[in-house]
Amino acid sequence: MALIVQKYGGTSMGSPDRIRNVARRVARWKAQGHQIVVVVSAMSGETNRLLSLAKDVSPQPDPRELDVMVSTGEQVTIALLAMALKDLGFKAKSYTGGQVRVLTDSTFTKARILDIDNAKVRRDLDSDMVVIVAGFQGVDEHGNITTLGRGGSDTSGVALAAALKADECQIYTDVDGVYTTDPRVVPEARKLERITFEEMLEMASLGSKVLQIRSVEFAGKYKVKLRVLSSFEEEGKETSGTLITFEEDTKMEQPIISGIAFNRDEAKLTVLGVPDRPGIAYQILGPIADANIDVDMIIQNVGHDGTTDFSFTVPRGEFARTKKILDEQIRPHVGARAIDGDNHICKVSAVGVGMRSHPGVASKMFRALAEEGINIQMISTSEIKISVVVDEKYIELAVRVLHGTFGLDQAAA
Amino acid sequence: MALIVQKYGGTSMGSPDRIRNVARRVARWKAQGHQIVVVVSAMSGETNRLLSLAKDVSPQPDPRELDVMVSTGEQVTIALLAMALKDLGFKAKSYTGGQVRVLTDSTFTKARILDIDNAKVRRDLDSDMVVIVAGFQGVDEHGNITTLGRGGSDTSGVALAAALKADECQIYTDVDGVYTTDPRVVPEARKLERITFEEMLEMASLGSKVLQIRSVEFAGKYKVKLRVLSSFEEEGKETSGTLITFEEDTKMEQPIISGIAFNRDEAKLTVLGVPDRPGIAYQILGPIADANIDVDMIIQNVGHDGTTDFSFTVPRGEFARTKKILDEQIRPHVGARAIDGDNHICKVSAVGVGMRSHPGVASKMFRALAEEGINIQMISTSEIKISVVVDEKYIELAVRVLHGTFGLDQAAA
Repeated sequence: MALIVQKYGGTSMGSPDRIRNVARRVARWKAQGHQIVVVVSAMSGETNRLLSLAKDVSPQPDPRELDVMVSTGEQVTIALLAMALKDLGFKAKSYTGGQVRVLTDSTFTKARILDIDNAKVRRDLDSDMVVIVAGFQGVDEHGNITTLGRGGSDTSGVALAAALKADECQIYTDVDGVYTTDPRVVPEARKLERITFEEMLEMASLGSKVLQIRSVEFAGKYKVKLRVLSSFEEEGKETSGTLITFEEDTKMEQPIISGIAFNRDEAKLTVLGVPDRPGIAYQILGPIADANIDVDMIIQNVGHDGTTDFSFTVPRGEFARTKKILDEQIRPHVGARAIDGDNHICKVSAVGVGMRSHPGVASKMFRALAEEGINIQMISTSEIKISVVVDEKYIELAVRVLHGTFGLDQAAA
Repeated sequence: MALIVQKYGGTSMGSPDRIRNVARRVARWKAQGHQIVVVVSAMSGETNRLLSLAKDVSPQPDPRELDVMVSTGEQVTIALLAMALKDLGFKAKSYTGGQVRVLTDSTFTKARILDIDNAKVRRDLDSDMVVIVAGFQGVDEHGNITTLGRGGSDTSGVALAAALKADECQIYTDVDGVYTTDPRVVPEARKLERITFEEMLEMASLGSKVLQIRSVEFAGKYKVKLRVLSSFEEEGKETSGTLITFEEDTKMEQPIISGIAFNRDEAKLTVLGVPDRPGIAYQILGPIADANIDVDMIIQNVGHDGTTDFSFTVPRGEFARTKKILDEQIRPHVGARAIDGDNHICKVSAVGVGMRSHPGVASKMFRALAEEGINIQMISTSEIKISVVVDEKYIELAVRVLHGTFGLDQAAA
């Protein structure tokens, strides 16, 4: 008997039929004698419906009130799933984030989980109940409702699994696992049986939409065993999805590169001709961080003539706001020559723990892109990934070429 | 400066435009220097949408989970109204029932308010905020979400006004006050400037849809000054609605009859030939009450040959369930001869504190109905009202005739 946290996304909860399907799947696990906690998202489309209703009332909806409103999406699905499970003859009980008490900070619309009280959930599990918890939401210390931001339900699932010391956290989604790259771009993409946390972290942060990055960070930090599965596989035909595991658990030889990730949601900004002196990076990025804008790649090359250029990328939706901060606050303050920006770029990355012990991965990657005439605008590397920024028009080509170059095509497996 | 609780119903909150209208109305009161607490219902249609979604998932939705779900309707509107008020430059903050802490019992879908914590609301009012509270909902002592049943937002408004010792509780609706009867049935119906609590209680309980009866009971019990107003009157053209007041406040001479109320939502059940002995009424109505069915009129006439007939009315939606309980549990248990029922009846009532000091009201009423050939099936009286049950096909005719008979037509005013 294991304690399993299962998380079902909005597509899995998208209609009454699908909710009853999820109930049957949960029931099968429960009937095997496991203790089950289920974390759910709102029905697909519901969060957007609520956001657009808010926009119809207020051009710039107040963040506190937006969270009060948007959190109702999951409050509906927890209740529906509990009803469906009771109809199958199981004991079930729903909890909002506030009722469990998922304590977060007070950053409305982008809150972070600080603590989870597991007392009620444990008590209910001990009474043989299936416990259903609203994902994506919590409360701050003053009892205000907060939400975790897009994709936050994954984080809720992992955080609950950590708080309950669950044996496994299963993320059910509309794909059956993590692939070497997006199969819509490269039909030869293969499903991975397992992937390390570090690789998953890079894949997620680089735009693989399977898991939300914060949930992977959380899982890594609290050593939660994470598995990505499909909620649409028929009974009896379920596969075991992709297990996200720790490197030391991985006995088999790793391939050099596990996958090619990419992200269209990027915009590039450059502060040109800033004085090359200590503290300049902080002076530029401090105000950006204060405005709660997530910065992704950061690049600063060696300077010349006492000045340097400083580039970074942000989500495309934040491009205008970031540009404004740079133009109005940062350029006059740091004495930069000009601000440059481009929101028609994308990022493509090769990820794999194998590159640690295999030199030459970068040059192989750059040569493959050069042979296709794809110009590289920015380069950034970590121990287990190499990312390049290229014009967004090349994105599919770049991904396909690299997938083949690193032997990830199905035929090569 | 007064402390005013305003309650806006689902029609007033029915669209983004209407919500902004409500915000402007609230803002005008606030700008006059009053402290304002607003209680709102869900957008019209939303509660039904949620109920039907629940029914799509589960044929008999679990009541606890139904409340978790249905309470989201008001959670959306409190947030929208708070956003709209902030856009007008006012400080505003929303609270769910659980956040205020509106404490109720645990009768899901029909909970009763036990206590309201006014600390947070008072603190916010003192900081010049407009406080917006979700109507219709609360939490029980275990933190479970509860709802008060249909129309419960009125009760929330009055209960908050009582807890805050507000100067006035204003119920905004789609009509501009309480009328002598439904103007859709009798075009000559007149708006009442004021009406006593006792009369309003009878009017409400007899089917006048303006106010929910529990809210009027609450207002009477806690001496809350209640006013019914329209939320659709244009700025500058607002009328003062109808004030519901205590008899001792009423200086002017009362008319004999204040209004003609009626209720289509009635079904009649008769237990025939029950032994005429003590305890029989309890044996019949006990199981009905246990099943949480609201009984309205109860009639038992003198018996003969040691048996008697026992009749009562219930809401039409409960007819089948009540009949089943009578047939299966009560008839064999009390040894009744048969169970009879009719769900095509209605109730028409004349209400007025004036009848206390004016004899002959009943006979005048019965004669007027007899002259139109309307057969009276049941009669029930209280100090300030006379109710008759008649075939539902006569409802409009009966109401029109009585409205004229008691001099309530506009021409007679």
